[in-house]
Amino acid sequence: MRNVKATIQYDGTAYHGWQMQANGRTIQGELTRAVSALDQKHVTIHGAGRTDAGVHAEGQVASFLLERPFEPSRLRDAINGNLDRDIRVSQVEFMPESFNARFSAREKTYVYRVWTGDVVSPFHYRYCHRHRGPLDFDAMREAASFLTGRHDFSAFTILNSEFDHHVRNLKRLEIELEGAILSIRVTADAFLRYMVRTIAGSLLDVGRGRISARRMEEILAGRDRSRAGATAPASGLTLVRVDY
Amino acid sequence: MRNVKATIQYDGTAYHGWQMQANGRTIQGELTRAVSALDQKHVTIHGAGRTDAGVHAEGQVASFLLERPFEPSRLRDAINGNLDRDIRVSQVEFMPESFNARFSAREKTYVYRVWTGDVVSPFHYRYCHRHRGPLDFDAMREAASFLTGRHDFSAFTILNSEFDHHVRNLKRLEIELEGAILSIRVTADAFLRYMVRTIAGSLLDVGRGRISARRMEEILAGRDRSRAGATAPASGLTLVRVDY
Repeated sequence: MRNVKATIQYDGTAYHGWQMQANGRTIQGELTRAVSALDQKHVTIHGAGRTDAGVHAEGQVASFLLERPFEPSRLRDAINGNLDRDIRVSQVEFMPESFNARFSAREKTYVYRVWTGDVVSPFHYRYCHRHRGPLDFDAMREAASFLTGRHDFSAFTILNSEFDHHVRNLKRLEIELEGAILSIRVTADAFLRYMVRTIAGSLLDVGRGRISARRMEEILAGRDRSRAGATAPASGLTLVRVDY
Repeated sequence: MRNVKATIQYDGTAYHGWQMQANGRTIQGELTRAVSALDQKHVTIHGAGRTDAGVHAEGQVASFLLERPFEPSRLRDAINGNLDRDIRVSQVEFMPESFNARFSAREKTYVYRVWTGDVVSPFHYRYCHRHRGPLDFDAMREAASFLTGRHDFSAFTILNSEFDHHVRNLKRLEIELEGAILSIRVTADAFLRYMVRTIAGSLLDVGRGRISARRMEEILAGRDRSRAGATAPASGLTLVRVDY
């Protein structure tokens, strides 16, 4: 029995998110089918981040136990042979028994991409949220500085959260412009539901001058979801890496 | 009446190429519909390069005569409003009466992209041809050097070509590796049918050691299509710019 760590990339456009469900194709569902076919029995796939419908991944991590012996690169190719081209296993490693993609994760990094140009490129529209009009990047960076560190992020998740406590350590929050694409890059020990997308929506509110950068500090302290900005659309979000 | 120059980008995956046809969606067909709707009469669209089915464009150029007056950026947005997101007008300019996207073109640049890594990224498979195994880039560059300049490219087009003569001035042919993507970048005054894809197929034959670099010079001189390599798949090809 091998404990397999698989690094996964996907274009989430056509999928109902990570988590397996009765109806609709999901990333976990496709991987379960692809891996179970190799072992000829049901294999349970653990994922580091349960990405929502339409969210993408450049470096999602999954783990599972496999009976049939394979060399890592042959296992990678065998799984890919059972998947559509918009999901790929980019790497396979064998790990100690204690490793679990979800519970062993030390930190995760997401990037939220915003297209700021006049015309959205046909090569990027699937991976960017489109924003029209000017954005004050300095104000967005100032607002971001209030969010970094260990805070209660209740204002930046859904009202009926599945988690008992909402304190997370937001280690880095960087805003960069490359060509027409504004990237909001967030690293934390763990994330709440919709947390990155609500942070992105709130930073865009600051960027367009709807609220001041200082206001972000009050919204965070208020722990009231209704004070933060709208949840930005899923298509702009990509899970870029998971560190262990 | 305005003579409009429109710069066009498209993901060609879902289209039957540039040229309008009775059955099947084409780029010219979609643009004709989108522009004609603005003038409320049929508008003829001229394209700089008649890209084949599945070929992409980052900088195709179209020209057409429009009666209804528009500011350039409003015209751009109005056309885009009538198109799917995988075709975009990125820029509109008004030109003198003599300008024609096809006949005024001084040179065109295509790039042929080859994915050389072990696993094709879900974000790039639409725009790359996949090659497995090692490639000798030095040999490919040597072979490319024989093709640059003014030559009869009969060996690198279809047998029953629509053109009377096959002499073209291949101004630049560059091979670059960036990450897993090998780019074959070709600039010429004009191109023959399948010319870039046949050059790409032949250079890949050199890269994998199937033929020597020197052999390229003989293939070119022989002017015999059956001697050159296979036509590489359309999905790897992108029209990147047209210069006037």
